[in-house]
Amino acid sequence: MTRLLLPHHDGSEGYVSNPTPALGETVTVFVRVPAGARVSRVHLRWVHDGEPVFAPAVVDRRDGGGEWWRAELEVRNPVTRYRFLLRTAGGEVRWLTGCGLTGHDVPDATDFRLVAYAPGPAWARDAVVYQIFPDRFARSAAADSRPTPDWAVRCAWDEPVAAAGPLRATQLYGGDLDGVAEHLDHVADLGANTVYLTPFFPSRSNHRYDSASFDAVDPLLGGDAALVRLAEAVHARGMRLIGDLTTNHTGDAHPWFPRERDLYYFTADGGYESWMGVPSLPKLNWGGHELRRRFARIAQHWLTYPYALDGWRVDVANMTGRRGADDWSREAAVLLRRAVQKVRPDALLLAEHAHDATGDLDRNGWQGTMNYAGFTRPVWSWLRADELPFPDFLGVPGEVPHRDAAALVATMSAFSAQMSWRSWTSSWQILSSHDTPRIRSVVGDAARHEVATGLLCTLPGTPMIFAGDELGLTGFNGEHSRTPMPWRRPETWDRRTLGAYRELIALRRTQPALRAGGLRWAHADGDTLAFLRETRDDAVLVVARRAAGEPLRLSGLPAAVSGENLYGGAEDLKVAADGCIEICGDGPTFQVWSVRNT
Amino acid sequence: MTRLLLPHHDGSEGYVSNPTPALGETVTVFVRVPAGARVSRVHLRWVHDGEPVFAPAVVDRRDGGGEWWRAELEVRNPVTRYRFLLRTAGGEVRWLTGCGLTGHDVPDATDFRLVAYAPGPAWARDAVVYQIFPDRFARSAAADSRPTPDWAVRCAWDEPVAAAGPLRATQLYGGDLDGVAEHLDHVADLGANTVYLTPFFPSRSNHRYDSASFDAVDPLLGGDAALVRLAEAVHARGMRLIGDLTTNHTGDAHPWFPRERDLYYFTADGGYESWMGVPSLPKLNWGGHELRRRFARIAQHWLTYPYALDGWRVDVANMTGRRGADDWSREAAVLLRRAVQKVRPDALLLAEHAHDATGDLDRNGWQGTMNYAGFTRPVWSWLRADELPFPDFLGVPGEVPHRDAAALVATMSAFSAQMSWRSWTSSWQILSSHDTPRIRSVVGDAARHEVATGLLCTLPGTPMIFAGDELGLTGFNGEHSRTPMPWRRPETWDRRTLGAYRELIALRRTQPALRAGGLRWAHADGDTLAFLRETRDDAVLVVARRAAGEPLRLSGLPAAVSGENLYGGAEDLKVAADGCIEICGDGPTFQVWSVRNT
Repeated sequence: MTRLLLPHHDGSEGYVSNPTPALGETVTVFVRVPAGARVSRVHLRWVHDGEPVFAPAVVDRRDGGGEWWRAELEVRNPVTRYRFLLRTAGGEVRWLTGCGLTGHDVPDATDFRLVAYAPGPAWARDAVVYQIFPDRFARSAAADSRPTPDWAVRCAWDEPVAAAGPLRATQLYGGDLDGVAEHLDHVADLGANTVYLTPFFPSRSNHRYDSASFDAVDPLLGGDAALVRLAEAVHARGMRLIGDLTTNHTGDAHPWFPRERDLYYFTADGGYESWMGVPSLPKLNWGGHELRRRFARIAQHWLTYPYALDGWRVDVANMTGRRGADDWSREAAVLLRRAVQKVRPDALLLAEHAHDATGDLDRNGWQGTMNYAGFTRPVWSWLRADELPFPDFLGVPGEVPHRDAAALVATMSAFSAQMSWRSWTSSWQILSSHDTPRIRSVVGDAARHEVATGLLCTLPGTPMIFAGDELGLTGFNGEHSRTPMPWRRPETWDRRTLGAYRELIALRRTQPALRAGGLRWAHADGDTLAFLRETRDDAVLVVARRAAGEPLRLSGLPAAVSGENLYGGAEDLKVAADGCIEICGDGPTFQVWSVRNT
Repeated sequence: MTRLLLPHHDGSEGYVSNPTPALGETVTVFVRVPAGARVSRVHLRWVHDGEPVFAPAVVDRRDGGGEWWRAELEVRNPVTRYRFLLRTAGGEVRWLTGCGLTGHDVPDATDFRLVAYAPGPAWARDAVVYQIFPDRFARSAAADSRPTPDWAVRCAWDEPVAAAGPLRATQLYGGDLDGVAEHLDHVADLGANTVYLTPFFPSRSNHRYDSASFDAVDPLLGGDAALVRLAEAVHARGMRLIGDLTTNHTGDAHPWFPRERDLYYFTADGGYESWMGVPSLPKLNWGGHELRRRFARIAQHWLTYPYALDGWRVDVANMTGRRGADDWSREAAVLLRRAVQKVRPDALLLAEHAHDATGDLDRNGWQGTMNYAGFTRPVWSWLRADELPFPDFLGVPGEVPHRDAAALVATMSAFSAQMSWRSWTSSWQILSSHDTPRIRSVVGDAARHEVATGLLCTLPGTPMIFAGDELGLTGFNGEHSRTPMPWRRPETWDRRTLGAYRELIALRRTQPALRAGGLRWAHADGDTLAFLRETRDDAVLVVARRAAGEPLRLSGLPAAVSGENLYGGAEDLKVAADGCIEICGDGPTFQVWSVRNT
């Protein structure tokens, strides 16, 4: 059976009357039951103060998509979990949860959820984030005259980046914030509307995750004044600017260390706890009031005039506040979220999390995560090249596994099922970052790179683009990927890839369904993936292929559709006599159609 | 592929060097990789202060069970999650978590877990619990002379129990605690060693969940002195006695209500919150210190001399402390666990939870749950009769679904995967209770009842038997199942069923693998279920069939086994020339063999 014939619900506005309800509000939820699913009864189950409560659903309407069943629930608790019970005339009993239909019982972990905590900012849903590693993005004229600090090894812009060894953290290329401001045309032309800067605080490394102060912008980047200039330039274009806050540790050059002992974890033997045992990164102790007070102030300082950042990406959020028997993770997240929103109600607070953020979201703190687990890994595993120039898989021993499209859907579903729809759609989908090999090195060529970029721009969540990916730059690991942008060598730019980024980002901007629509998987096998993004009024069909194969025949699309090709240069959709739609088997391809009832 | 050829780990002592470690302890964990699984590399992944850490595993030994891979982890956090990464020579990459092997990525929810909080009492692992609803179990001579309270309708012992209507809570049959003490021979002969009493506090109903005091035993049950006599009689036999504490609400006749307003939830309109809207059951507010102080004292009082109860079953634990934006559930559980263990370090604290306790376990509070979700429902769904005399399914709309053995395994795995092994094995497995139809009415006949009892006594967890199930009593819903025990009509007892209970409980007592062994599913299809329970030294094969079918051929058993039949009257196991074992297709049957290397 094609997946489109399965009953469906997700947290998008087509299925939930208010995805960001207040506590106590009554919300109407819908299940779409396509014709042929033989469902005779639907119940809503929701959990009310810890106890499941059932309510019968009724048929609200019938349309080309099938029957729409409706039920109401009270958002009784800050996180109210719900699911559906479907019975068929034949006596089959199935649960519908975030993981889809199951013919056996499952715990609440994958229940849909409505969250009554303050929602993330509305602008984040439409954001396209462009990640900039300041030392490697662009140098302004002023950069030439800055002295080289004692820890640094000055490099010319074209010098190769060290992928290993001591130079990794000390190579200094001298990019600065005025350099960023000078290249905002490039960001805007790409279609991105949010600039995310990795740390700009003074430190003793090129990555600046070893902060020596949270009170000033690194003079190597141009100091506070340069940040003001950049923020003004970004905001003048209607764009947003996100900073990077290191809450798990400081650098050992920070004035707090080692003097203010209550802020860190000192041990009886005179040692101290540090990030992954790296002595230059002493770990902060979130157990005390004083550290919390300081971080609230720091987080607020940079969000207010004249800097007016629009939010923070929080470094190593997964470890922040956690150490042995201590777990202040939630307290830290809630404190920062409240502090930030007190001065900037529209600010975004987003958590780095390398493996599984689901347990840390929907807790009144982080509003989203860097979705390596639920996006990057499954995309890499599906699109990886036959031969890889690097041996590891984002911290997992051994190389990137070869997996098919069904595994991609299974992984994405498994992670998205354990967070609210709003946390998923506020999370950053990532093909590569300053901590990973570059997507081009993962997939090996421009054709598959285009497929990856297509998924980035059409699946739920905020696309985050690591500067340089759009030019087809390569990189074998996080350090090696911190490639200086080749502004002066435009002949090296991969124009096909750049064009694909621009066109796909524009497609996302012009198609509401790609930003606000629900997601229904339509097909997933070895080489082919197809899905629908749908709002109440718009629908888009996406077909991605990593290789050529058989034509794809899809049934279960909204009846009698006509589909205009929006991307990928394919013919418009035509419904065959048997009601199916057949899509050519060329590959690798990425193709998008609008889908409308005729 | 037979399931026995899959790599396996669980939390039992054969796979974990110390299942109840202290914080900071290093624990060795093992994966069994049967021959033919083609695994070339194994890594352990564990989460250290929020960050995954990998360690390569090495082959520890090879035996008839295959290769045993070994790795070590530090119990770094109170709940330390871990899983395994398996790579084959062919390049396949699989995770092994509590849900088994997956070829895609999964969140941490199903990771194995080591818990450093204080463990539950050792005796609980070997407990067989016998549940007594005091009004319906047995009357002592003194019962005849007690006056009938104003709320009650006195019934003769043989009078039918009301399944619906106002009599449900008011029929008073007059069972008392001395009556229980007089029938401990029956409990002991059955092989049970732990008596669990539903509430004995004064109230205005026959079920006593509407407590009017926590300071005295209901005089209708014989008062405090009768509890002392019962406790002494129980303990004199080396048995344990568990009480039932209502922490979510009191009765409206309780002296706290409505005077002590801070202990409840009064609303602005002069109303108050109550359990499921039932006005006689006002809900307690766990937000305040005073309620917590009182419950700590209450919980302690009855565990100390001269009552010396051995623990509490906590009523409606899933709702306790939860209301709207309030969630004091964990605080309540931790407080009670600490209070209880302060006076009785060997006491058990077990949570009622009707749908999914996994989120409430392993949090330093409840030590186990009444496992309706992970045991009762899947067993009912597999063994239900073709025609049922009742229309609902433990609170889920519609009748008990028909499901096959594979669905039973899927459900049990889904729930057990989201708790620690010790929480699972400390939980009560239940075929029926005072809140459900009786198992006999679910399965319809003695043959399937025996299969159900077999599963109760051979799967992980503590068997809990609702008094009367062993006699084949019937009941269509919770109230109707509160059948007075037919002591004076022994001719009505189902001797076959009683014999099966005695024999299966004895089997559990004599086979260490049934109490402490790991669990490997061997086979599951429509009508047939097979599994192994294994310690380092002992192994038991269980085959359960709900109907006759084809002979079962099993491969992958520990090489060259010989198996003595321990239950079910089958022949001893014989290995065929191809290394398989063939088991006769009779059914319904429940059969157990010891399995030993020859």
